[in-house]
Amino acid sequence: MIVQLAFEKTGGLLPAIVQDHRTGGVLMLGFMNAEAFAETQRTSEVVFFSRSRNRLWKKGESSGHVLKVKELLIDCDADALLVRVEPLGPGVCHEGYRSCFFRSLDEDGTTTVIEEKTFAPETVYGPETKS
Amino acid sequence: MIVQLAFEKTGGLLPAIVQDHRTGGVLMLGFMNAEAFAETQRTSEVVFFSRSRNRLWKKGESSGHVLKVKELLIDCDADALLVRVEPLGPGVCHEGYRSCFFRSLDEDGTTTVIEEKTFAPETVYGPETKS
Repeated sequence: MIVQLAFEKTGGLLPAIVQDHRTGGVLMLGFMNAEAFAETQRTSEVVFFSRSRNRLWKKGESSGHVLKVKELLIDCDADALLVRVEPLGPGVCHEGYRSCFFRSLDEDGTTTVIEEKTFAPETVYGPETKS
Repeated sequence: MIVQLAFEKTGGLLPAIVQDHRTGGVLMLGFMNAEAFAETQRTSEVVFFSRSRNRLWKKGESSGHVLKVKELLIDCDADALLVRVEPLGPGVCHEGYRSCFFRSLDEDGTTTVIEEKTFAPETVYGPETKS
């Protein structure tokens, strides 16, 4: 069955969950517009649409930490994507962690860092980039 | 450290990824406004904000397939949530699957169902509900 992704439902952007295909760990969440999605499919590397920079954003364009697509899944309403990837490099987070979800949230609003850093971000990123 | 979730960044709604805390499987993605998030924290059961129904939506309110919160994580930008849960019941998807991500997407836009159904939705849901 041919599926139409529901880009119009969320103002042109669909949330895309990135999951490590081997460990099952959730690495990050980004957004894709139709063009970012097409580029992701065409290149088999994850391309988001950056809301803050208002442009296509290939994950790893500056860090080299590219996300190789292993499997693309859509949900029942066709308005969310799950991208199973092989992550290149030590981590996806511009703060130096394997996953952007490196903090747990407690009931009182405090956070606890639950992962170890896997790289030093200052050696990977320029001062203004976080890709 | 006390964290402020970035609700204003996305028009009051944050995407919330739901992951089975035991298997690592991604079950669904929903959205939470500040009230849904507070209810999720207060009750330790997942509450979303339904964009289509424009109201709080406790997952499992009609099906009984409640999601018990085991761990709440936030990402580096505090604009996405990862909720690790113990799912009660055979599945979260109103189409009868364990996960809403039961279809893979091929390059030509066709989809392939990659999971077995785990329950008969017509025995669980009324004609108008999908919770």
